[in-house]
Amino acid sequence: MSVEVRLVEVGKVTIGGGEPVIIAGPCSVEGLDMLRAVAAAAVEAEVSILRGGTYKPRTSPYSFQGLGLEGLQLLGQVGREFGLPVVSEVVAVEQVDTALEYLDMIQVGARNMHNFPLLSALGGVDRPVLLKRGFMATVEEWLMAAEYIVKEGNDRVVLCERGIRTFEHWTRNTLDISAVPLARMLGGYPVIVDPCHASGRRDLLEPLALAGLAAGADGIMLEVHPDPDKALSDGGQSLSIPGLVELAGKLKRVSTN
Amino acid sequence: MSVEVRLVEVGKVTIGGGEPVIIAGPCSVEGLDMLRAVAAAAVEAEVSILRGGTYKPRTSPYSFQGLGLEGLQLLGQVGREFGLPVVSEVVAVEQVDTALEYLDMIQVGARNMHNFPLLSALGGVDRPVLLKRGFMATVEEWLMAAEYIVKEGNDRVVLCERGIRTFEHWTRNTLDISAVPLARMLGGYPVIVDPCHASGRRDLLEPLALAGLAAGADGIMLEVHPDPDKALSDGGQSLSIPGLVELAGKLKRVSTN
Amino acid sequence: MSVEVRLVEVGKVTIGGGEPVIIAGPCSVEGLDMLRAVAAAAVEAEVSILRGGTYKPRTSPYSFQGLGLEGLQLLGQVGREFGLPVVSEVVAVEQVDTALEYLDMIQVGARNMHNFPLLSALGGVDRPVLLKRGFMATVEEWLMAAEYIVKEGNDRVVLCERGIRTFEHWTRNTLDISAVPLARMLGGYPVIVDPCHASGRRDLLEPLALAGLAAGADGIMLEVHPDPDKALSDGGQSLSIPGLVELAGKLKRVSTN
Amino acid sequence: MSVEVRLVEVGKVTIGGGEPVIIAGPCSVEGLDMLRAVAAAAVEAEVSILRGGTYKPRTSPYSFQGLGLEGLQLLGQVGREFGLPVVSEVVAVEQVDTALEYLDMIQVGARNMHNFPLLSALGGVDRPVLLKRGFMATVEEWLMAAEYIVKEGNDRVVLCERGIRTFEHWTRNTLDISAVPLARMLGGYPVIVDPCHASGRRDLLEPLALAGLAAGADGIMLEVHPDPDKALSDGGQSLSIPGLVELAGKLKRVSTN
Repeated sequence: MSVEVRLVEVGKVTIGGGEPVIIAGPCSVEGLDMLRAVAAAAVEAEVSILRGGTYKPRTSPYSFQGLGLEGLQLLGQVGREFGLPVVSEVVAVEQVDTALEYLDMIQVGARNMHNFPLLSALGGVDRPVLLKRGFMATVEEWLMAAEYIVKEGNDRVVLCERGIRTFEHWTRNTLDISAVPLARMLGGYPVIVDPCHASGRRDLLEPLALAGLAAGADGIMLEVHPDPDKALSDGGQSLSIPGLVELAGKLKRVSTN
Repeated sequence: MSVEVRLVEVGKVTIGGGEPVIIAGPCSVEGLDMLRAVAAAAVEAEVSILRGGTYKPRTSPYSFQGLGLEGLQLLGQVGREFGLPVVSEVVAVEQVDTALEYLDMIQVGARNMHNFPLLSALGGVDRPVLLKRGFMATVEEWLMAAEYIVKEGNDRVVLCERGIRTFEHWTRNTLDISAVPLARMLGGYPVIVDPCHASGRRDLLEPLALAGLAAGADGIMLEVHPDPDKALSDGGQSLSIPGLVELAGKLKRVSTN
Repeated sequence: MSVEVRLVEVGKVTIGGGEPVIIAGPCSVEGLDMLRAVAAAAVEAEVSILRGGTYKPRTSPYSFQGLGLEGLQLLGQVGREFGLPVVSEVVAVEQVDTALEYLDMIQVGARNMHNFPLLSALGGVDRPVLLKRGFMATVEEWLMAAEYIVKEGNDRVVLCERGIRTFEHWTRNTLDISAVPLARMLGGYPVIVDPCHASGRRDLLEPLALAGLAAGADGIMLEVHPDPDKALSDGGQSLSIPGLVELAGKLKRVSTN
Repeated sequence: MSVEVRLVEVGKVTIGGGEPVIIAGPCSVEGLDMLRAVAAAAVEAEVSILRGGTYKPRTSPYSFQGLGLEGLQLLGQVGREFGLPVVSEVVAVEQVDTALEYLDMIQVGARNMHNFPLLSALGGVDRPVLLKRGFMATVEEWLMAAEYIVKEGNDRVVLCERGIRTFEHWTRNTLDISAVPLARMLGGYPVIVDPCHASGRRDLLEPLALAGLAAGADGIMLEVHPDPDKALSDGGQSLSIPGLVELAGKLKRVSTN
């Protein structure tokens, strides 16, 4: 079964063309040095796109909320230095114009999949959008959310499956692997798998990433941190730098098999 | 078990003081005549607050999206005519200033419970907020969302339990009746129960509303339409006007027993 | 809305006739003295039926599994001493004959709602059955399970809603209060609410029991232990003896209002 | 990451040794001819074990309940004719002795994962057990259920992930792909993936089977029917005979890569 999806260009990178991409970077951009360290590893690991969170939607208002604009600027700068296109999340319409100055791809996070004004605003810009599935959204609702973007004229949409909420409590969420072929078949969009948010466990990243590719995913998104145990957010599900290089190598070998 | 919660004033109405309030109105404001018909019934039924949707977040971009500003203006006008405070939903930060001109209470819908910029913006205004629970949010996350508002200085928060998403498919959602005493005990906020969105079935509105009051809810929110079968949204879970008068009468009798 | 359901006789007690019954007793029968203490309290509290677990299905094989036959005998003896009909759970077809010697009502637990041979066997006996909803079963599946009993000739079925499994983690399960009117309307069976297993929290028993009655339940099932903190199972959700007397009194007052 | 699990012998077949097995056969044994047709295809497709349901636990008592003993006899006969070990489900303790006469492996279905007397009985027999995960059981509860078997002396347990119940409604269940590495790592049992029950959709069988192997599964279980559209149960998720040969070939190629 080989399903064709529309190709989406992100800078020099093509998503959906058969060769899986790896998107990697820190959950939160914490500073210039750590971001450069990650970017250097990303280049070594043949990662295609650098990611980094700067506006962080957090359950508690007292958790670290990201560096905001400063983080965007750092991400843009490091992306240029290392020749990597960059993607980050925006959480409000009024951030979009600024984000366009720095980002090659704009991410909508799971908590904003139903933020219809934000989706519509991104439908009007000339930049690809990475639309994460809400952890409480059906595949049908996810495709409808994509339609809010496409309807406004921007069809450069890539979907990202990052796990749904279930009763299972040994994983942070439950990776809905069926959603990968379903969204590709029924929506025609490329689909990226995010095993970090799906599982919340470093020991599951490899099997879930491999399963994602086997199910037809167009790429894998990974969290990386130079020192995961000291990360300001999501350290427990982040790869170390050697961990990234090793896992990326395995994914490359599988996908060129 | 009688738990004290903070009192929240909405115009001349007090929520949380022991006497349950009824909030009622159409899912969507569709025009002046229908809104006046509902408001007249609301007065007859001793409803405390008039509600009506004007910015409607809909799963599909091709569904009716509400009258927007015009709806807000109609709601403000009819509220003044009938002496009823009014509440409606906003879905974006940039709607807040306009909404303040017309509304006595501002609602955050289930899909925006995790819209942190919106919550923070509402923390800075002088108006009570009705915060609906996300349909896949834990009670803990709901209380954290309220904290985003309170942290900015606005502690006039009323919570609304409207059902969570489960595997049960004979109801639209599953009313989490336990959330009523939990949120009151652990958050200290008044809690309103919305049996319409919780069940999606007119034949369950009465037992769920009665159960809500028995569990300690500070009020009940109901959808009403002069002709439910012709409603532009959510007709199947709306009361008719005589249905409102009858149910409101029962709720009053129970709560003054 | 008053829905008529079929009447089910349990010894001298009628379930479904408009006056709610209280079923109470220990999660596990632990010995004669504790059971007599609970039965005496049950009489004082005007409880209608004495319950007590003797074959305990436990998640772990290393947890206390109940007294088995000895527990059944104790329950039968104490029921006669205090003039209370008794109900307990069986977990296998081969226990049914023995159970008939001691019990006035036979319970099928949540984990056995899909044990079709057991349901069919109970369809062939002359004894009412208390069928708990599986924590993973839709209302439709629950009514179908009842049909396995009725099809074999025994229509003396009482349903018990005891909570379903959801993502909410501040309660053990989520009491599906909508299931009470749904199962009564669509199945025509009396429905009992079990707030103990639904919530797993002593501080929620009162609001959930009151909500159950308000939603139309035909009775409430409660766990009681002379010393809840030392219970061999489910102590955290059990009432003390004074707690039973107090809550039963409140439920009586509400239901005769 | 390569996790070692205990080896389980089923007739001449070894599960858990690195080479994935394919278990295939009809959802229900409907007669001798169809079973022989499937078995011939299974041999052609290098399937390791023949499966076929004979005691069918069905939600409704009015659905086809399987051929029972006659089905077991047919399965045993056809297994011998084609040199294939056979597996089928039992749903009650009193079926175990008979099942031992015909089966090389005994299956416990999802609805009986919490049937503790059945699990304990299977702990006392000299035959491997295929333990399906309950569709609303956590991985922890699943491993505990296996422990009920092992505790009685039978450690020849193979687990089968067949999807859990969630809110997603485009698939029958949600394949919990994370459960494969989790149960292998934390339980040490071989794990089989059942994409048919997990998805309920023929168009997802290939990507889910491939994902299962990529995540480390020790085998794949498939439903096959000579004429899926006329199957007495589960036709929509069954492979045709050419479909089995094609998919089995792909799975073999992947696993020997």
